[in-house]
Amino acid sequence: MKSFIIRVAKISDSKSIVNLINELAEFEKEPNSVKINQKDIENDGFGKHPKFKCFVAEIEGKVIGMALYYPRYSTWEGPTLHLEDLIVSKIYRRQGVGKSLYLKFINEAKVNGFNRVEWAVLDWNIDAIKFYESSGAKILSDWRTVQMTKEMIDNYTFLNKKKIESL
Amino acid sequence: MKSFIIRVAKISDSKSIVNLINELAEFEKEPNSVKINQKDIENDGFGKHPKFKCFVAEIEGKVIGMALYYPRYSTWEGPTLHLEDLIVSKIYRRQGVGKSLYLKFINEAKVNGFNRVEWAVLDWNIDAIKFYESSGAKILSDWRTVQMTKEMIDNYTFLNKKKIESL
Repeated sequence: MKSFIIRVAKISDSKSIVNLINELAEFEKEPNSVKINQKDIENDGFGKHPKFKCFVAEIEGKVIGMALYYPRYSTWEGPTLHLEDLIVSKIYRRQGVGKSLYLKFINEAKVNGFNRVEWAVLDWNIDAIKFYESSGAKILSDWRTVQMTKEMIDNYTFLNKKKIESL
Repeated sequence: MKSFIIRVAKISDSKSIVNLINELAEFEKEPNSVKINQKDIENDGFGKHPKFKCFVAEIEGKVIGMALYYPRYSTWEGPTLHLEDLIVSKIYRRQGVGKSLYLKFINEAKVNGFNRVEWAVLDWNIDAIKFYESSGAKILSDWRTVQMTKEMIDNYTFLNKKKIESL
C-alpha cells in the first residue's frame, strides 16, 4: 500500500471535502441530500469563526479521507467533541486510514481536555458498529434523534404564528 | 394558572439552570451523572465565547423551565441548531410552558436561517415522542448515538500511544 499522512485541513481542501461528503451520502443511500457546496465549506470551515474543524488523510498529494468535527455542550459533562463525518474514499479502505483519522480525532479530544466524544451511526452499518465497539465506544441503544427540516420548521412556526408573537 | 414569561437567560440564572438540569437527570434515572456546577454554567454560557444559549421560563420571578441549545454543523445542510435540554420543573408542567420554550427555540432557528433543528429523546419517553411528532418533527429510527466517556478516551489513546505519536 502507498503511505498516507494525516494533517489539519486547509481551505484548498474544500473541493476534496465536498467530494468525500457526496461519496458518503451515496453509501448512506441519500445521494441527493447534500445541499452544501465547495463555497459553503470554504466559508463555514475556514472563515473568521469556523463552524467545524477537519483532519484529512492524503496519499501522494490527493485527499482520500477526512474526519470533520466540532464542539458541543453536554449539561452533564460540559464541553464535548462531536465527530460529524469519518470518511475514507472507497478504493482506499482497509489500509488503516479510517482508524488513523479516528485516533487523531479522539486524541484531539484528549489533548484538549474534552470529557466526551460522540457521533452517530446507522443501525445497519454493522462494520462501523463493530469497529466503534472494538475501540471501547458505547452504542446508546435507547436514544433516538429527532429532527425538523426547514419545511417542517416553516410549517410549525406558521401554524403557531400568533402564539410566537405573544412570547 | 399563574402566567409565565419566556426570556433569554442571564448569568444570574445559572443556579436555577443547574437545578433544572439535576431535576431532568433524576427523571432520566441518572441522578449522579451531572458533573457540571453553577460556576461551569456561568463560565460556559455567559463568558466571552458562550458554548451554548438558553431561554428560560419565569413565573413570579422564579425560573421554572429552560431550553438550552447551540449550533452544530451538518455536511448535508450546513449550520443547524441543536436543542440539548428542554426542561420544565415538575409541578409547573401541563400549562404550556414546555410548548412555549419549544416554539421559542424553533422560531429562533427560523429567524436566523438555520435549515434544521435537532435533539435527542429517550425511546421510552412516549409523551415526549408524541409531542414532538404532533409538531411535525421526525424520529430517525435508524440512527444510533455512539459515545466515549473520558475513561474510554484515556484507555483507547493509551493503548494506541505509539500509533498516535506516528501520526
